[in-house]
Amino acid sequence: MATRAPAGPTLDDIRAAREAIAGVARRTPVLPSATLTERLGAPVELKAENLQRTGSFKVRGSANKVRRLGDGCAAGVVAASAGNHAMALAHAARALGVPCEVYMPSEAPLTKIEGAEALGARVVLGGDSVDACLVAARRRADEAGMAFVHPFDDPDVVAGQGTLGLELVEDVEELGKVVVPVGGGGLASGIAIAVKSLRPEVEVVGVQVESCAPFPASLQAGEPVEVDSRLTIADGIAVKRPGGLTLELMRRWVDEVVVVSEEETAEAMVLLMEKAKLVVEGAGAVGVAALAGGQVEPARNGCTVAVLSGGNVDAGLLHEVARRHETEAGRRVVVLTRVPDRPGSLARLLTLVGSTGANLIEVQHVREGIALHVRETAVELVLETRGREHAEDVLAEIERAGYHASVLRG
Amino acid sequence: MATRAPAGPTLDDIRAAREAIAGVARRTPVLPSATLTERLGAPVELKAENLQRTGSFKVRGSANKVRRLGDGCAAGVVAASAGNHAMALAHAARALGVPCEVYMPSEAPLTKIEGAEALGARVVLGGDSVDACLVAARRRADEAGMAFVHPFDDPDVVAGQGTLGLELVEDVEELGKVVVPVGGGGLASGIAIAVKSLRPEVEVVGVQVESCAPFPASLQAGEPVEVDSRLTIADGIAVKRPGGLTLELMRRWVDEVVVVSEEETAEAMVLLMEKAKLVVEGAGAVGVAALAGGQVEPARNGCTVAVLSGGNVDAGLLHEVARRHETEAGRRVVVLTRVPDRPGSLARLLTLVGSTGANLIEVQHVREGIALHVRETAVELVLETRGREHAEDVLAEIERAGYHASVLRG
Repeated sequence: MATRAPAGPTLDDIRAAREAIAGVARRTPVLPSATLTERLGAPVELKAENLQRTGSFKVRGSANKVRRLGDGCAAGVVAASAGNHAMALAHAARALGVPCEVYMPSEAPLTKIEGAEALGARVVLGGDSVDACLVAARRRADEAGMAFVHPFDDPDVVAGQGTLGLELVEDVEELGKVVVPVGGGGLASGIAIAVKSLRPEVEVVGVQVESCAPFPASLQAGEPVEVDSRLTIADGIAVKRPGGLTLELMRRWVDEVVVVSEEETAEAMVLLMEKAKLVVEGAGAVGVAALAGGQVEPARNGCTVAVLSGGNVDAGLLHEVARRHETEAGRRVVVLTRVPDRPGSLARLLTLVGSTGANLIEVQHVREGIALHVRETAVELVLETRGREHAEDVLAEIERAGYHASVLRG
Repeated sequence: MATRAPAGPTLDDIRAAREAIAGVARRTPVLPSATLTERLGAPVELKAENLQRTGSFKVRGSANKVRRLGDGCAAGVVAASAGNHAMALAHAARALGVPCEVYMPSEAPLTKIEGAEALGARVVLGGDSVDACLVAARRRADEAGMAFVHPFDDPDVVAGQGTLGLELVEDVEELGKVVVPVGGGGLASGIAIAVKSLRPEVEVVGVQVESCAPFPASLQAGEPVEVDSRLTIADGIAVKRPGGLTLELMRRWVDEVVVVSEEETAEAMVLLMEKAKLVVEGAGAVGVAALAGGQVEPARNGCTVAVLSGGNVDAGLLHEVARRHETEAGRRVVVLTRVPDRPGSLARLLTLVGSTGANLIEVQHVREGIALHVRETAVELVLETRGREHAEDVLAEIERAGYHASVLRG
């Protein structure tokens, strides 16, 4: 059963949205990326929407929706969200003087809960999942005469997200291609409508993450197909089932949807931190992942822009991503070796390691589970080196001194 | 013995520098900070110079110097640096078609060495410190007829850094105060000359880090005073002795120099990552640290701008900073408790912990150095929680179940 095509927003709706959200959402900068430009041999720029108010593009759609509701939301607005949509609606509602309630799963990160509260929203915790919260939020809206605001499947929301596309057309010289993260599809379709209405020759490509990628199958089937969602680093786009409206808009306006891996997404986050100096959440980094991984070719003519759709990532996850990257770059190695079980042995080994310039992060005796001579003990060292080549030199030094050493990770 | 005041650059020199560096350095964006604005009750904006080419403001001064040298550097330019100046000069030299050599200490981070090489510089490693490299670099310049480029104590370099001040005057509405990191003093004096020549009423405040802060004493003495430098998170501004030129310019143009702690600097880096979504190195974050810590009051009238002077920070350090922050925010706690030394004890404890919603990061038996009953064993748990309040709930649950628990860190 194919869904009937509901009405999507037009270029005029998006232009009107721009007026409506002025003062609530920011115009975010477009930054050239020397690293990606050099690596791909073609000009690449980054739309730094992670610098948007509340840390994601969502505020554009929320603000437009609240404005368009006008008196229809005098009693307030209600949303269900584990993160960005909650903070965005809270901000938009406060800026426009409208009460706001958000239903969040009890497991939502405390930073997001506090974030929504700090923006003046009443947060109602409960339910295991966003789906459960959605049911509660809709019920609350009906009972209290408040307006329920969907995160993506709403023409006013799509029109708001489309304002980002207007900025691209104005701010990027010779725009050739736009690469956009896809969760519900509101951002990608909004951008595509804006950009292609003004410049039909510009390509717009959507990117999903492998752990939750319903769009390719849904586009093929011609109707929303629900997929299972695994734990993902790109939780901001982990939407298991496209909306009826956004699926139709994506089909009509977006050229292609590609899929990237979790690994590629994590590496893109690190590349953006290390090279572009931008904190971008997993969901916001998939466009760069697709360019770096080759799923998307840069434009043949003109500039390719990757939209960094959000930057809301906990310090805890940043720390994990950075640590893993250190290991992958060979700047962090875990070495297993053995020393004689007598006084001064470990001191001698560590003196040797110190002389190689490697920094000792952790040391631990390992006596179980390893075949050892009765008078020796195994030692696990976590070392920080200057990189893969240095790590190899350090290992060679250890072996030259008569120790047997093996690398566990690094 | 007071140094005689050498000639500093004028506003016209800075305007000429802007022409000279166009195409080599970028105009970086100024971004409003909702978080600091709310916290301080006055408008605060961030000059995101961490988004500059090569990740720091240094490229402005280097590019101007190379341009001004003209034929005088046909044989090439030479610098000594452990980081940002090396990459900046390499970039400027390549952009202007001039050979470049940089002398770097053997302990310089591999990313910086590779960064300079990737930008086409010949890197000469050797020497324990930047001081030793300086000697070698000057000798090399003399012998080879190349031009030595000082990182700050040079009027052309100061003029180049001053171009950032022109951008502030043009881009910030009602500029009231500028807060600038101070290492050698080139950036702060360049900005102060530009800003105060055009808007004498705007205050310019410099910020140093406690571990290496020679300016307050030097300004008081009227001559460069050398201080000891301890290991610092703000290594980009760890200059032990002001230059003769920059000290005089700072005295003449900068209103005040304040000092922040290492702790405050680390917290400012985290605030910039979490709230502003920007990766800023320690040296670049001291202005925000001074505003958050109260060493600098926001402007009474108009907007206060903190200059984020650079963003070159290794993933390894980012990971440390993020991890420490998690501990301080109570989102990471280390708990010591005891379980009976019999089968299933630990499993029961971990089941309990899991039911509280805390995530187990590490678990370890501790048998040594603790007074234990003969049939019990101590267990150290590293837990990730949703925040301080949740951490307290988790502990209360553990104690309610009959375990004695104490918090080691968190």
